[in-house]
Amino acid sequence: MPDRNQQFSTEQSDLLMQMLAARRDVRGNRFLADELDQSDIDKILKAALHAPSVGFSQPWEFVLVKDKQSRCTIAESFFEENEKALQQFRAGNYDAAKLEQYQALKLEGIVESPLNIAVFYNPKKGPVLGQTSMPEMGRYSVVCAVQNMWLMARSLNIGIGWVSILDPQKVKAALNAPQDRELVAYLCVGKVDKFYDQPELETLGWEERKAEQQVVLSEGY
Amino acid sequence: MPDRNQQFSTEQSDLLMQMLAARRDVRGNRFLADELDQSDIDKILKAALHAPSVGFSQPWEFVLVKDKQSRCTIAESFFEENEKALQQFRAGNYDAAKLEQYQALKLEGIVESPLNIAVFYNPKKGPVLGQTSMPEMGRYSVVCAVQNMWLMARSLNIGIGWVSILDPQKVKAALNAPQDRELVAYLCVGKVDKFYDQPELETLGWEERKAEQQVVLSEGY
Repeated sequence: MPDRNQQFSTEQSDLLMQMLAARRDVRGNRFLADELDQSDIDKILKAALHAPSVGFSQPWEFVLVKDKQSRCTIAESFFEENEKALQQFRAGNYDAAKLEQYQALKLEGIVESPLNIAVFYNPKKGPVLGQTSMPEMGRYSVVCAVQNMWLMARSLNIGIGWVSILDPQKVKAALNAPQDRELVAYLCVGKVDKFYDQPELETLGWEERKAEQQVVLSEGY
Repeated sequence: MPDRNQQFSTEQSDLLMQMLAARRDVRGNRFLADELDQSDIDKILKAALHAPSVGFSQPWEFVLVKDKQSRCTIAESFFEENEKALQQFRAGNYDAAKLEQYQALKLEGIVESPLNIAVFYNPKKGPVLGQTSMPEMGRYSVVCAVQNMWLMARSLNIGIGWVSILDPQKVKAALNAPQDRELVAYLCVGKVDKFYDQPELETLGWEERKAEQQVVLSEGY
């Protein structure tokens, strides 16, 4: 068994920070159509399986989707849901410029990326250690797996985009998922022409970056 | 601005995998009482702030808790909730040996660790880009921040334990959190005497590790 008690150096920790800071949400305008190496896909999945999970329940399932028909069905759900989103922004009194900016954004890469991965939560029957007071912990374990995948992909110079403007029921239907599964994340995965220096929504001024002192508190509110 | 389009090498990616695999959930029997360096705490928080967030909403807040009284109040909630958990396992027809195993587990390090960090979701009023169809995306962004913290801590040879056997309302009350905030994670942070080679619950046989072929599917169910 490998030594997991190993000590990492400052230089190694600094490299991790560079990877965390260089990870981006990638959309269809940056993906290349190149097929991914199976060895890279395997590393991304291995990273997922090393995520923490509440009570070591490992409540995750990963469906690799390349089929064009499935992806077109899922992309249709995106377009429907994005139209509803626009209605919500209109109702929320966003000004014309902001609505125009929303409509100009490319928010997914479902068909442009060579691989999609649908990530599901598979709830366990009966109590799960650590999940008895906070039932959402199972889903949160699956999210930790997604973040591991995102970071491993970035270290392999592969981009991931998380598409959340979807009807989870339609994604489940397209992939024939059992009733009890819950969609946590729908990921577009592929090589990219470049990674942006900062999040696109930051560059475009959609939202401002919060300063540390706005979100870090000492001892309480 | 740093170049975020940098290419990482296979050796660097392999190092990330080592970090992912060496990260552990740490409980009170492994924490040392040593105070943490402020520079390390800053790096852990910086890692959090580089997490992805839906619509760049950055819906997170981090409360650093060292105060003994707050921690004792929160530890009391753990003991109450853990008693309820035991009732659930009893009702779930777990056998006597499994119940005994549960009772013998050390499941938190609230007072043993030198620092606790309560991580909250601060929901935004009005629609959030990317969150209109899946409202849980805001909470999931906060979970990504937690996973970044966990990995950064591990690279600094610092342990984190996520305590979820808590009543979120009692934690909120102890920290005077506003009504609309939601507790996502309660973290115990500190140096450790050692990191285990594998998850403790795996070593103890509480749950078995799932094989990749059990949780990875091609094209659908």
